Amino acid sequence: MTIDFKRDVLAPVAHDFTAMDTFINEGITSKVALVMAVSKHVVEAGGKRMRPIMCLLAARACGLSKIEHAHHLAAIIEMLHTATLVHDDVVDESGLRRGRPTANATWNNQTAVLVGDFLIARAFDLLVNIQNYDLLKDFSTGTCEIAEGEVLQLQSQHQPDTSEETYLKIIHGKTSRLFELATEGAAILADQAEYREPLRHYAGHFGNAFQIIDDILDYTSDAETLGKNIGDDLMEGKPTLPLIAAMRLTDHDSAQYQIIRRSIATGGIADLEQVIKIVKQSGALDYCMQRAKQETALAIEALQALPETEYRQGLQSLAELALERIQ
Amino acid sequence: MTIDFKRDVLAPVAHDFTAMDTFINEGITSKVALVMAVSKHVVEAGGKRMRPIMCLLAARACGLSKIEHAHHLAAIIEMLHTATLVHDDVVDESGLRRGRPTANATWNNQTAVLVGDFLIARAFDLLVNIQNYDLLKDFSTGTCEIAEGEVLQLQSQHQPDTSEETYLKIIHGKTSRLFELATEGAAILADQAEYREPLRHYAGHFGNAFQIIDDILDYTSDAETLGKNIGDDLMEGKPTLPLIAAMRLTDHDSAQYQIIRRSIATGGIADLEQVIKIVKQSGALDYCMQRAKQETALAIEALQALPETEYRQGLQSLAELALERIQ
Repeated sequence: MTIDFKRDVLAPVAHDFTAMDTFINEGITSKVALVMAVSKHVVEAGGKRMRPIMCLLAARACGLSKIEHAHHLAAIIEMLHTATLVHDDVVDESGLRRGRPTANATWNNQTAVLVGDFLIARAFDLLVNIQNYDLLKDFSTGTCEIAEGEVLQLQSQHQPDTSEETYLKIIHGKTSRLFELATEGAAILADQAEYREPLRHYAGHFGNAFQIIDDILDYTSDAETLGKNIGDDLMEGKPTLPLIAAMRLTDHDSAQYQIIRRSIATGGIADLEQVIKIVKQSGALDYCMQRAKQETALAIEALQALPETEYRQGLQSLAELALERIQ
Repeated sequence: MTIDFKRDVLAPVAHDFTAMDTFINEGITSKVALVMAVSKHVVEAGGKRMRPIMCLLAARACGLSKIEHAHHLAAIIEMLHTATLVHDDVVDESGLRRGRPTANATWNNQTAVLVGDFLIARAFDLLVNIQNYDLLKDFSTGTCEIAEGEVLQLQSQHQPDTSEETYLKIIHGKTSRLFELATEGAAILADQAEYREPLRHYAGHFGNAFQIIDDILDYTSDAETLGKNIGDDLMEGKPTLPLIAAMRLTDHDSAQYQIIRRSIATGGIADLEQVIKIVKQSGALDYCMQRAKQETALAIEALQALPETEYRQGLQSLAELALERIQ
């Protein structure tokens, strides 16, 4: 039986999800009309709300009694995620996200930068209300690391010598860290110290798998399924795992090797078709898929430290579902 | 005797200032080379460090015993200030600040947006370490209001009907609010609840005067003294107090009135010379100077609730010194 997002992931926390959604809408308040308009626009453009759902499942899996705290935390996670997307779209000069015009395209870069700042500040403002220092410390350190991951990605752009180790640092910061905050934060709220590490590991490995899959899809998907164009990463000279693996698996004296290096160094998609061919024929894509499966297996393994509940099963289903995008 | 910044403002907290400066440099740590390089660049480009000095004076004026907390708070204030400048320079597409190339000009917009985010996160990270909920709440709410003030300014660009009331809201958010955090934060740290309001009022009125003076200088200074070009605000169609007052003081059927309205609506400095003439002849500049003096008087009046010390005198001197820029 294939996994169904609504039935296998969302259903166990459907009521919590509704409460969280209400809290997001109530939490974004401002006397400044433009702040409201842009915030609503970007929060409503949200996708499946995977991060808050993960937070709610983790909170229930930990047996959190003050469940309204989890609703707040999940909403805060989604606001932070939205803020990073708004700034990412400025950074990447993106006009569309999930088929909708971005904030920078609808308004302008200025508005997008400042409303992103507002959402970060508002997320912290709501977090302070929960009055939990461990949680605050985790989040303040975590948001530093997220920004650092994003800058490391910029620093590595057009650098063909970027190692797999650096790639892993980048994706940990830009993607996995927020998933970690979502689940470890739930364990902190539940005051279940022994579940902090397993839940962090689950989310970290899940995030790694999720990003590796995303980077695979940049060389294999069509625009319809992904909502982004094939070759976007190559366009920007991003040394993602498919390219790093392709260089390792290709004879360094070959023309193929030079094509990959040059594409990263210069950016642009002039050689896209050739790069796709090399990535596939060298075995790089197979390697990436294997790595995504490994990370997913590690995520699920980490979950076993938690009691067996429908919520733990929901977290497992979410990890398995993410893998289906490349199968 | 004229007021001297070093002798009358800085001297009473000179040792604290050194400790604060060390803490800023130690506080900005990152394993990502680009984060370090940009952060150092922008923090070193700082000016007189008016905000942290104000924080240190306020802390001493309140008799704070754990003075190292004030060093940390002052450093956090400066980091937040720097973060907003970095994002402002992206928003305004500025190439120079205080005669030095901006982060967006030296690197690019992407780097500036992300390092600004890092500095905001790091400031909160250091703030969490102080473990004071009242302080955290004040700062998290305050940073929301700062972002809102900046967005309100954007929203009011090219709007000739912007009222003086809206102008005051803008400058409270974009300028005065951080001064308030610097001084009220010191009272919170010192656990002197009765000094919170006087110190917030001092800083709020000081900030208003400071920004009104800045807006006056945009129509009267030369580039050398200010480090920014005359007419910058007009260029961007910003309805600042000199223009708002000029419209109120000018016959609404006159050509002069239309010139001001059109200049705000379209932006640009085609009519700069005429606008300057109208702003001066209408009495608008006189009105602005009078308002700056009023705000300064209110700032100093608020200080009287504090015990008479060299630190309180330092805060008063700072307010008087700010006025000298237009005298």
